Amino acid sequence: MEIITSPQAMLRHASQHRENKTRIALVPTMGALHEGHCSLITIAKEHADHIILSLFVNPLQFGANEDFETYPQTHTTDIAQAKTHGVDVIFMPNTHDLYPENHQTTVTVNTIENVLCGKSRPNHFSGVATIVAKLFQLTRPHVAVFGEKDYQQLVLIKRMVLDLHFPIEIKSGAIIRHDDGLAQSSRNTYLSTQERTIAPCIYQGLSAAQHQHQQGETDPHRLCTTVQQHLDKHPSIAIEYIEIRDAETLETVTALTKPAVLAVAIVLGKTRLIDNIVLK
Amino acid sequence: MEIITSPQAMLRHASQHRENKTRIALVPTMGALHEGHCSLITIAKEHADHIILSLFVNPLQFGANEDFETYPQTHTTDIAQAKTHGVDVIFMPNTHDLYPENHQTTVTVNTIENVLCGKSRPNHFSGVATIVAKLFQLTRPHVAVFGEKDYQQLVLIKRMVLDLHFPIEIKSGAIIRHDDGLAQSSRNTYLSTQERTIAPCIYQGLSAAQHQHQQGETDPHRLCTTVQQHLDKHPSIAIEYIEIRDAETLETVTALTKPAVLAVAIVLGKTRLIDNIVLK
Repeated sequence: MEIITSPQAMLRHASQHRENKTRIALVPTMGALHEGHCSLITIAKEHADHIILSLFVNPLQFGANEDFETYPQTHTTDIAQAKTHGVDVIFMPNTHDLYPENHQTTVTVNTIENVLCGKSRPNHFSGVATIVAKLFQLTRPHVAVFGEKDYQQLVLIKRMVLDLHFPIEIKSGAIIRHDDGLAQSSRNTYLSTQERTIAPCIYQGLSAAQHQHQQGETDPHRLCTTVQQHLDKHPSIAIEYIEIRDAETLETVTALTKPAVLAVAIVLGKTRLIDNIVLK
Repeated sequence: MEIITSPQAMLRHASQHRENKTRIALVPTMGALHEGHCSLITIAKEHADHIILSLFVNPLQFGANEDFETYPQTHTTDIAQAKTHGVDVIFMPNTHDLYPENHQTTVTVNTIENVLCGKSRPNHFSGVATIVAKLFQLTRPHVAVFGEKDYQQLVLIKRMVLDLHFPIEIKSGAIIRHDDGLAQSSRNTYLSTQERTIAPCIYQGLSAAQHQHQQGETDPHRLCTTVQQHLDKHPSIAIEYIEIRDAETLETVTALTKPAVLAVAIVLGKTRLIDNIVLK
């Protein structure tokens, strides 16, 4: 396994593999790898011969009061884990190489950016779109794999790929959960022991709503209320949103006639957690 | 010469030529070709084997009260002229193919966008950056050629290419002028006979300032005043700006110690005209 830090070297490497007709997959991450990331590597390997995992904590997608400075960095174990899972190249660029002082360009995906998590994280998604556009250019993948945990990000990237004509196939990996249902996330390490026992109630709420939907309930409001009832049991949870939106466009829906995503964001103590479930 | 309208066909064509190691140049235009465009084709041919000329009036770069609806369209003569000058492919996409109903992605180049022409045309440059990013993806050029007439656009594209890591060399073509000094522009056709006799005063002003600079004047304010004096002779001219800025970054300069661009925008009757000269 090779570790590349220079953007120029990454582009050269990718171009050479392109010329040799190697099929490249990119798995973009911010490091602090967990089983969720590993499942994306497995998907990548099903669709390509050469797996690039990028490992970059992107400052552009963090707000001023967010956890950029404290975001978990576990490079040594990340590298070992990537190797074990058959990654061919880790791309670990430096911030100043990707964002030199006079960097000025941003990519925005207008409508999708402003709903759900975009409301409380106003520049987050243009930060995501910008770094992903940059990573796509430097790693030149045929396929890129994103987790469904960050559902809004997935929809946004798919839209950007269409709009900017990236010749890249976007694959997604299902949410990987702990045994108690909590979605795996690098940010779960922020939770205190007590908070960690409370956190699974998000998935319990989502599952209850999914069950209700399977029983025939198609009213988004009533399904969201079910989730809320589960969360309201815990006074330490502040609900940011519980929403049902079109699974493809993230537009609001008034009745569940097409696949929709039931998405939740909460703050538990000091930790912001998101989760979702697709209702088909 | 081939004419391609479908974005997918354009990308396939470009990819095939890339695979055959053909060196591709793109000359992006909005049509209404004049000698300025032809000079860009000539430059393109010096740097590549396969010349793609795009011909697309990009709605995204026009403001609500601007001339999108009336922008000169001369497809038949454009196609003939492109052929004469040795263009290999004309890429003429339809608006709805490049901007389908649910298109949401824009590219912005933050600082550069907001100065000079950006002040009176607030969304113009993100429209330019977006369409050029799209054309770059679809035509996959090794080289792209832009005119120095749209100097701010040239600086913006160079910045975007660096920031988004497009592996594309940007070449520029000098302003091509009519015998009386007026910079060639598709919008010159808007001028009345009388306005057309007044318009060369822009270049006269720029030339006078250049002469003054060559004589040792390094104060931007005094050089701009020289231009203004030439323009003020004509009451039908409304000056939008006369500015001297760093030739590479478009930052303001207080003294001419590095190459700078002296840029002018005016409105003559109903026609907005821009011109510039680089002071070295």
